[in-house]
Amino acid sequence: MKFDASKLKFDDKGLIPAIAQDDETGEVLMMAWMNLEAVEMTLETRRVTYWSRSRQSFWIKGETSGHVQELVDFRFDCDKDCLLVRIRQTGAACHTNRRTCFYTAVRDGEEVELMAPMT
Amino acid sequence: MKFDASKLKFDDKGLIPAIAQDDETGEVLMMAWMNLEAVEMTLETRRVTYWSRSRQSFWIKGETSGHVQELVDFRFDCDKDCLLVRIRQTGAACHTNRRTCFYTAVRDGEEVELMAPMT
Repeated sequence: MKFDASKLKFDDKGLIPAIAQDDETGEVLMMAWMNLEAVEMTLETRRVTYWSRSRQSFWIKGETSGHVQELVDFRFDCDKDCLLVRIRQTGAACHTNRRTCFYTAVRDGEEVELMAPMT
Repeated sequence: MKFDASKLKFDDKGLIPAIAQDDETGEVLMMAWMNLEAVEMTLETRRVTYWSRSRQSFWIKGETSGHVQELVDFRFDCDKDCLLVRIRQTGAACHTNRRTCFYTAVRDGEEVELMAPMT
């Protein structure tokens, strides 16, 4: 069946969450949002492109930082309301210069930092 | 630092997205939503508990299906607006009886089903 991006379920702001996962290691790197055009741009260019809610503009990941995300596989879930992009990440996915945004764990009620920024 | 769940950034509906990842295989199994109480219940009981937007009630994953999610590690991202729960999944995470909800890929413009329901 041909994929029709407009059949995805976008929320009341026209957005859908996209989980970025390292295709080699399986590490979950970040979660951000796409609108319909960002989905189409991502599939066409193979460069993962989000919609920045704070800047209200397209966010071609790595365009300024060089930390690009090359699309390896594009997936969506059973409800068509969440995306999973398997990617090749250059450098850090997180703006704190850590490989992943999910670098803090909660263990025995305490926040535990799992990794330092990349040097 | 002591973790304070109320410091997480919930959206205008009081919800935060939670990505469930198989702790052993790294597979991303599903994404659902938690409110403040669901976060606290998950941490206290170690049984992953979401907030069902459709039913407007707590959703202790597996309570009816038996497909429970045992919490292994609870993480949050740099912006405190997304959760990653690393879990031990009994059976299928997806209501279609597939291991993961992300069983459809888009390849060369076509939808490709990556796995069949578990038998």
